Amino acid sequence: MATVKLLSDEEAAPEARAVFDDIRASRGTDYVNNFWRALAHNPDELTDVWARIKRVMAPGALDPLTKELIYIAVSAAHGCGYCLHSHTASARNKGMTPEMHAELLSVIAMASRTNALATALQVETDDRFLA
Amino acid sequence: MATVKLLSDEEAAPEARAVFDDIRASRGTDYVNNFWRALAHNPDELTDVWARIKRVMAPGALDPLTKELIYIAVSAAHGCGYCLHSHTASARNKGMTPEMHAELLSVIAMASRTNALATALQVETDDRFLA
Amino acid sequence: MATVKLLSDEEAAPEARAVFDDIRASRGTDYVNNFWRALAHNPDELTDVWARIKRVMAPGALDPLTKELIYIAVSAAHGCGYCLHSHTASARNKGMTPEMHAELLSVIAMASRTNALATALQVETDDRFLA
Amino acid sequence: MATVKLLSDEEAAPEARAVFDDIRASRGTDYVNNFWRALAHNPDELTDVWARIKRVMAPGALDPLTKELIYIAVSAAHGCGYCLHSHTASARNKGMTPEMHAELLSVIAMASRTNALATALQVETDDRFLA
Amino acid sequence: MATVKLLSDEEAAPEARAVFDDIRASRGTDYVNNFWRALAHNPDELTDVWARIKRVMAPGALDPLTKELIYIAVSAAHGCGYCLHSHTASARNKGMTPEMHAELLSVIAMASRTNALATALQVETDDRFLA
Amino acid sequence: MATVKLLSDEEAAPEARAVFDDIRASRGTDYVNNFWRALAHNPDELTDVWARIKRVMAPGALDPLTKELIYIAVSAAHGCGYCLHSHTASARNKGMTPEMHAELLSVIAMASRTNALATALQVETDDRFLA
Repeated sequence: MATVKLLSDEEAAPEARAVFDDIRASRGTDYVNNFWRALAHNPDELTDVWARIKRVMAPGALDPLTKELIYIAVSAAHGCGYCLHSHTASARNKGMTPEMHAELLSVIAMASRTNALATALQVETDDRFLA
Repeated sequence: MATVKLLSDEEAAPEARAVFDDIRASRGTDYVNNFWRALAHNPDELTDVWARIKRVMAPGALDPLTKELIYIAVSAAHGCGYCLHSHTASARNKGMTPEMHAELLSVIAMASRTNALATALQVETDDRFLA
Repeated sequence: MATVKLLSDEEAAPEARAVFDDIRASRGTDYVNNFWRALAHNPDELTDVWARIKRVMAPGALDPLTKELIYIAVSAAHGCGYCLHSHTASARNKGMTPEMHAELLSVIAMASRTNALATALQVETDDRFLA
Repeated sequence: MATVKLLSDEEAAPEARAVFDDIRASRGTDYVNNFWRALAHNPDELTDVWARIKRVMAPGALDPLTKELIYIAVSAAHGCGYCLHSHTASARNKGMTPEMHAELLSVIAMASRTNALATALQVETDDRFLA
Repeated sequence: MATVKLLSDEEAAPEARAVFDDIRASRGTDYVNNFWRALAHNPDELTDVWARIKRVMAPGALDPLTKELIYIAVSAAHGCGYCLHSHTASARNKGMTPEMHAELLSVIAMASRTNALATALQVETDDRFLA
Repeated sequence: MATVKLLSDEEAAPEARAVFDDIRASRGTDYVNNFWRALAHNPDELTDVWARIKRVMAPGALDPLTKELIYIAVSAAHGCGYCLHSHTASARNKGMTPEMHAELLSVIAMASRTNALATALQVETDDRFLA
């Protein structure tokens, strides 16, 4: 259970309800997931996060699926269970195959391993990486 | 400075030197970076990490550049400075443009923000993400 | 479920039970929450944590509510669900309003975002911050 | 050294330079610190972070100094050295006394200790915290 | 629930089933725990993790119980609930007494506290530690 | 550079100087390392940390060297550079051989890898680990 009540459409402030409506319209679904309903206690943050995430995750120099894979990687390193479930679902919706998922996890595992080794050893950065 | 001496070719055990040689051959360079020279005190780990990283980062369902972007994302979340410098350099070598770098950072920043919110609110995972 | 059994008053060692009694007296309640019952397997740590937390969270240069907000911020960054639930409850008991909670979360989200950016970019500290 | 060049006013794009100018005007100083100069490679993120941080850190239900203390707490838990230096300086500018700094650190240390214990023990959340 | 289906012996690929069989033989049990069944979607990673963990956790300069204590310490710092439950069970199987568990937790708590203080203060490393 | 001045014996308050003296006496050295000199701005925390660390790191159900190895593991996972340098030095003083150091690092790397996988997959804990 969340530390706040999940707000229904009726309970949410008009500014928050407008975000719910835009989520529905943008995604072509009636469903608004729990994250947004919890965040609706803070309509300013809700509005800003939603506007920003639409912009950041849009196609650009990187395609939307690649962006979802990066999102999963960050969420795994931070241990955010909610984020892992929701963005793994998003990545599948955007075309992540089981093979891509498997390779994503192997890269995350590899980076976690060498991150730990480089940190534990406090390896100094090579001059050539600083050039 | 690292917590161990960086081993030169002469100081490294034969098993470690063989890895140094394979790094040079695989990358077409004479340079072996500090991470491997620090890890050479542990030839078993060195050999295993190098063999695994070659396999994991090879082209597959995901291309090598996408894998480097994921590596940077994990390293940022773990705060590994060495890893960020070395894999940002690798990503550039594999074709990461300034525009791609900028978008990568915006996705990392976005995920860090929503990870923090979902965690601080302890949002429960929607049933539909568990199906 | 915890990795250890939660100890009842009857099961706890006398040193641990004395802490349970002091928790009840200090808080004016009969309830001793799970954290203390799990920690009771280690009476030395239990006694020391309880003595220290009473001292650290007492009014001083910072008021107790501000200290709870800081506690929530640290717990969010560490991803400790138990701590987030218990200290969000404590903060409400000490006067945290929904508006304060909303702003707390926005600061946590902001810091998480710029922490990620400064780390991913490995920005060097300005001399003037070191003066 | 950062993974990107710190951009001077001359090197920055007009959109980024406008942010630099607003930083100077808002703070009443000629100095633009390194974080913003590194972020200037990504004018969209720079503009958005700056606009958001001005809004989030403004006086509200929480005062600006309390917000800086929360920022330091998050930055400590994430291990962001740059952020710790810059926000410790900001907190001092906004009135943090040595006594407040000492208590802030004691709360951060306390939370880190109990976060670790609750996590290592995997203590289940009490029903009453979920009510 | 995991983000992937836990694979039964019948559902797993032959390479993954061979790992399941080796887990059973090595441990003298019929039970294969959930981690391996989730990882079986990625037979290459499954095979490599299992081979490596057998080698790393074997008796050497450090005994297997000490290695489990270190594993728990890392898992606590990363907040991995699954890992804490499974490796606390393993440590008990290898002889961890309640007294050892209590002291392990006190060291983890101590380190988390001083890690937070040294980081928040950004203490510079003494020259003598670098010699 | 630290976010606070490192205090000399002359600058430290009497309560802090008494801790410095006890550090010297306990360790049989004239040297007081930077961590304690930074922490001396907060004599209450300094006194409490020093008293607690002496007790927690003393021989008990676990020997002092094993405790240092656990300390290093936690410090690596938290990315505390100061702590890694100082506790790697301590561990060597207490008898950590290069072979033990190598195996310690391999266990840290292994745990970091499986922590990442179990978290990314959100594997549910087996009932038998909860019994």
